[in-house]
Amino acid sequence: MPPPFNDEERRGVYRAIYERRDVRTQFLPDLVPDDALGRILNAAHHAPSVGFMQPWDFLVIRDFSTREEVHRNFECARRRAADTYKGEQRKLHDDLKLEGILQAPLNICVTCENNRSKGSGLGRQTDPAVALYSTVCAVQNLWLAARAESLGVGWVSIFDFEQLKSTLGIPSNLTLVAYLCVGYVSEFRPQPELEEKGWESRGTLASVTHFERWGVHENGEPK
Amino acid sequence: MPPPFNDEERRGVYRAIYERRDVRTQFLPDLVPDDALGRILNAAHHAPSVGFMQPWDFLVIRDFSTREEVHRNFECARRRAADTYKGEQRKLHDDLKLEGILQAPLNICVTCENNRSKGSGLGRQTDPAVALYSTVCAVQNLWLAARAESLGVGWVSIFDFEQLKSTLGIPSNLTLVAYLCVGYVSEFRPQPELEEKGWESRGTLASVTHFERWGVHENGEPK
Repeated sequence: MPPPFNDEERRGVYRAIYERRDVRTQFLPDLVPDDALGRILNAAHHAPSVGFMQPWDFLVIRDFSTREEVHRNFECARRRAADTYKGEQRKLHDDLKLEGILQAPLNICVTCENNRSKGSGLGRQTDPAVALYSTVCAVQNLWLAARAESLGVGWVSIFDFEQLKSTLGIPSNLTLVAYLCVGYVSEFRPQPELEEKGWESRGTLASVTHFERWGVHENGEPK
Repeated sequence: MPPPFNDEERRGVYRAIYERRDVRTQFLPDLVPDDALGRILNAAHHAPSVGFMQPWDFLVIRDFSTREEVHRNFECARRRAADTYKGEQRKLHDDLKLEGILQAPLNICVTCENNRSKGSGLGRQTDPAVALYSTVCAVQNLWLAARAESLGVGWVSIFDFEQLKSTLGIPSNLTLVAYLCVGYVSEFRPQPELEEKGWESRGTLASVTHFERWGVHENGEPK
């Protein structure tokens, strides 16, 4: 049995969690070495999955012309979404940089095969979303491993997803869960960019923590 | 700007990823101190979320009679699911322990409020599932932080979820994403239990990694 984590190992886990950022504006063009790419993909591949079904696939994209097509898709979807905001919020929205598709040297698309035979359906009968959840666990593993490698990751969710699947040749029965921009960065900012720019603030942990029954809060943060 | 991770900090991140287990059978009754609980919940609360919407809530359950009711719900759902397996697989299925609801001293239920106003809808128009994805990132943060604290976590997904929400008083507009059993363990097994018991094997990373376009694999694992 492995020994308990020492202080530095434990600090590494919490550093990855607290210093991880959703990166859009700080990407450097430096290439990501194959060994670092292999490590973050293998971290993703070791995520938990319901029934051990491993429903994920990873599509690694470096080709610039592909990324240009993906970026055009994003631009159209973003323009459509922008129209739902008015006044000051619209101005703030339009000033936000929401992706690094072309600046990051590497894009990784993560998909989910809901009906994968692996796992024989164990744990999936009562909630069909659990395969998607397993795939998201893989994304978060990749994100945290990337932080430990000094690699930034940004998750882009503003797309016409059917068109994006077509661009990348993804079979229609799969769900495109995440489109990630990955690369080294000039800096990891101390706060989330959306907090820094005034889009949204972080709520307190106490306000989202309940004890024994929904709606029962203890005074202050759990210690 | 924080310094790059040193070797031990980086090892901590990969240890958490590779040594994390979905624990069902090794829970000890030892109480989980409030400070450790606070650290793993705060790790969850620092997950990425689309538009910084923070759609999650955490319900901490220690009460034994509540856990007994949850366990009865699980038992019924499990019996229904068992009927889908035949022969040898049915025998293997019935021998699997799939939860530690009563053995673990602590259960944590994680929910998602899809329409939370925080984040003002940013990034949510094109894929309504992204709020759920953010919540799953919170679960995975909790799971990895728990591993660094020597706490085991097991995700139970076999329930009548409407009944479970009613037991816990969870409002009908929320999605119950994860029901987690949490506690110290007698050991972290070297392999996933479902692999060890022959339910399913791990596929190769190479078989789920594609380059530039879906279906294009490189020889062997990415280096």
